[in-house]
Formats: sequence, C-alpha cells, structure tokens
Amino acid sequence: MENSIARRIRDSFARQSVMTTIGATLTAVENGAVTVELPFRSDLTQQHGFLHAGVVTMIVDSACGYAALTMMPASAAVLTAEYKVNFLSPAEGEKLIARGRVLKPGRTLTVCFGEVHAVRDGQEKLVATMMATMVARQDTGLTD
Amino acid sequence: MENSIARRIRDSFARQSVMTTIGATLTAVENGAVTVELPFRSDLTQQHGFLHAGVVTMIVDSACGYAALTMMPASAAVLTAEYKVNFLSPAEGEKLIARGRVLKPGRTLTVCFGEVHAVRDGQEKLVATMMATMVARQDTGLTD
Amino acid sequence: MENSIARRIRDSFARQSVMTTIGATLTAVENGAVTVELPFRSDLTQQHGFLHAGVVTMIVDSACGYAALTMMPASAAVLTAEYKVNFLSPAEGEKLIARGRVLKPGRTLTVCFGEVHAVRDGQEKLVATMMATMVARQDTGLTD
Amino acid sequence: MENSIARRIRDSFARQSVMTTIGATLTAVENGAVTVELPFRSDLTQQHGFLHAGVVTMIVDSACGYAALTMMPASAAVLTAEYKVNFLSPAEGEKLIARGRVLKPGRTLTVCFGEVHAVRDGQEKLVATMMATMVARQDTGLTD
Repeated sequence: MENSIARRIRDSFARQSVMTTIGATLTAVENGAVTVELPFRSDLTQQHGFLHAGVVTMIVDSACGYAALTMMPASAAVLTAEYKVNFLSPAEGEKLIARGRVLKPGRTLTVCFGEVHAVRDGQEKLVATMMATMVARQDTGLTD
Repeated sequence: MENSIARRIRDSFARQSVMTTIGATLTAVENGAVTVELPFRSDLTQQHGFLHAGVVTMIVDSACGYAALTMMPASAAVLTAEYKVNFLSPAEGEKLIARGRVLKPGRTLTVCFGEVHAVRDGQEKLVATMMATMVARQDTGLTD
Repeated sequence: MENSIARRIRDSFARQSVMTTIGATLTAVENGAVTVELPFRSDLTQQHGFLHAGVVTMIVDSACGYAALTMMPASAAVLTAEYKVNFLSPAEGEKLIARGRVLKPGRTLTVCFGEVHAVRDGQEKLVATMMATMVARQDTGLTD
Repeated sequence: MENSIARRIRDSFARQSVMTTIGATLTAVENGAVTVELPFRSDLTQQHGFLHAGVVTMIVDSACGYAALTMMPASAAVLTAEYKVNFLSPAEGEKLIARGRVLKPGRTLTVCFGEVHAVRDGQEKLVATMMATMVARQDTGLTD
C-alpha cells in the first residue's frame, strides 16, 4: 500500500497536464528520489529526429521537483527556481528515464541532481544531467 | 523577400516537430537574434496551472539555438551543449515570447542569452532568462 | 555624502578579506548595481598566463551579491545560492571590471546578472557572464 | 613511479600561480579524476568568515579542468567554457577537498562533475557541487 507522500506526489503529477500531453509517467517515488519515464514519440523531436532538449529537460525537471517535494512539509508547493542541464548524447532510443534526487534538502531551498538515460535495446546511455534549485512555497502564495 | 539565412532557419524550425506539437511559431529571424512565440494552452501546464518550466525552456532553447545558427556556416548544424535557466515569475498570460540572441559567436562554440516574457493584457513580464552554449556540427556527424 | 546603503555595502566589502588579498576594489554602488575592479596580477593567473577563471568568478560573484544586498532590508545578509558563468574570452589586459545588477529582486531570492570586461589599452572586451541566485538571510542565522 | 599523464597535470598545476597564492595543492591524479585541497586561511574569506564562494569555485574548477585534461591528447590545452556551482553549506573547517571527475569525455568538449567537501574534526561535509564544460585546444591557439 502506497504511503501518503507517494500519493501526494502522484496526485500532483497527475495535475501536470503537460506530462499527459507528452506521454510521460511517474514510475518510482522514494524519499528524496523520483523517476519519470517517457516513451519516444516522433512528435516530440527536434530537426535531427532526436527528442528535443526541452523535452529532456521537462521530464528531469519534474523528476527533480517531485524528489524535492517528497522532503517538504505536506502543506508546501514546489517551484523551480533555476536549473542547468548538460546534454551529453543525442536523446534517441525507445524511451527516456529521468531520475531526480535531492542533494541537499532545506527549509526554503532544496538542491537536486538529475540524470536522463536513453534506453535502446535494453541498454541505458546517459543523455543529460541536471543541477536544480527548487523552492518551497506555501500553497496559498506562489510569488514573492 | 526573405534572405537565405532566414529561409534556412525557417526550414529547420519546421522540422522541429515538437514546436508544431506545442503550437510554437518562429516570429522573427535576424542576424544573431531569433524570436519564438507560444500561445498559452492548458495542456502544457504544470500542477498550478502555469506553463511548465520545461515548456518555457523549450521555446527559449529553440530561439537561442537558431540565433546561433544564423551566424554559422550554411553547412553547419547546431546542437545544444548546455544551458541554465532562471525562473523569475510564473509563466501565465495569453502567450509567451522567447527571444534568443548571440552573446559571442565562435567557430565551434556560440554563447547565447535568452529571455522569455509572458504577455497579459498587452503587458510583457519577464518570466525566465537563459544562458546557453551551442555547438556547431557538420551535418554529417552529430556526435563526438 | 554617501547614503546608508552604499556605506553598508562598502563596510561589508571591506570585511571580505579575500578581496584585499587579490587587490579588488569596489568602484561603484548604485541601487541594484555594483562594480568591482581588479588590476591584473601575475600571481592570480592560470597555466596560460590569463587570470584564473575562479578569480574572474570571484569578483563578479561579489559584484552580484552586493548588487542584491542593495535591495535587501538593512538587517539582511546575503549568501550565494548558486551561479553559472560562461567564459567568452581569455582574461588578460590591465584590469578587469565586474558589473553585477539585479534582474529580479525578491524577499528571499534575488536573481542577478553579471558581466566581466577586460580592459586593454582603454578598450573593454567581454570576458565572462554570470547568472546568479542570491539568498537573503537574517544576520543571526546563515544556514537552513 | 608517476606516469606521464600525472606528470603533465602536475607540471601544469605548478604553473597556475594562483594556486600557490591561495595555498592549494594537487593531492590526487587518476585517469578522469583529480583532487585539489586547500587549507583554511582567513585571508581568503568573505564577510561572514567563511571561505569565499569564488575560492571554493577556483579549486573545484582546477580539479575539473585537470580531470578533463587527463583524458585529452598530450598536445591539448584545457580551457573552461562554462560552469555552474551550487553552494550547499558554508565553507568552513580546517580544509577543503575539491574532487573533479569526467562525466563525458569528448574530442572537443568534456563535461565534468565536481564536489567540494569541508573537513572539520575529520568529518567531511558537502559544501558545493559543480557541473562544468571544458574545451580542448591545441596549445598553439587558445581562442576561436
């Protein structure tokens, strides 16, 4: 039976309508670590037929944001303050797996590290890495 | 009549199928500067109803990448090596305008700066800034 | 006569002992914008005789941090949460000028943009750009 | 007996005069991984008495740059294209240990990950993380 934190993450993920639009799913939720997967789709590609860098970013941003949210109080909402992504290989293959984990939790700021692997013929290849700062906000006030 | 650089950018943008998927269009191409616009759509949002950070990133990545491509030889392809994005305000309103421009062109590496503004009731508000490194590749060999 | 904000910045800068160690000085303080200068010194170089990337970073970090502090309450201390720097040209010449300015002030987080120019024969050349997130802390509690 | 790669790294490090200035030393060189250490010194601090963020950055930049250089041809020079650093805890204690390692080697671009730990009473605490892009240049031509 799923615990309350995982349920909260799944409920919030289900409200990220862009995840449904691109076909991404939440495949693992642990304390401080979340995995999001995305099957390859040709309508998500850039001009060379690889998944667009922004699509790669989107799923690892969600993985990192939800990893941070697992360590925040139940009343908190999470927002992305900033991130940096390095692209190491073209995003091609059957699917992408984005894993986000908390490097340093904090009352206000949580720093996360994320990795995206492409899966082809059962082999994983590192496609991108993310370093991100997530901000906790009370659900009633999202802006400064 | 459009020049050959602008035509090359438009042809390449038209092959970024994810841009069609999300409804983004190329609205300006100058030497070293490109603009991409995206009307708000509720199927591109995150859990609070704002456009997802990854969507914001996607259009400014394309704007920066194509800004870099305007200054590369006709035979070159452009790839994103890395970027960093700061999110300054929630991405809400009628549409987003992403502007990318070249800070420093180079034979191999081109550094770009991008900004995304949200438009609401005719007013622009700064939503995000990007600093990106783009790489020129010959069209025949994309990987190291 | 200098105003109280500028005096507060100068007092704090004077306590950054590493700035004295490397010979950097605060040359301008405005609301939301600070300038730090560093004369070239061969004992601050890397293996090719240019000023080390970390030295370039150090002065623009201070310029950005103090730019943020000009817009914070008098009781606040400023800490660097994160930054990203792109290096555009070798840091050589008679001196460096680092200019930091606030892109978006906030109660907790302030986003800054910084540029470093090298001056040679009276000409400025862009050496590096910084995008940084600064955090306001009450002076009594620096950590989460 | 030290191998030729390690000797090359040590020779280059010895020419980074800023490392001597701040008292940093190279303590380990492996294929794709380099460690730099810095004893605490009060003349390297910021206004709260911690080591300045730029000093933390400097040693992990050198660790990452030399980690990249271990995997480049003997004729190559390494330059920092860009990096991003997140600061997780104040840099205080007896000394800092900066470890850089290669995430993805490449003919032109090498992506590295770095960590800085502060040591206090024999305990290590994570102070900062770096994600960096290093560029290989032939020793005769450093600029684009």
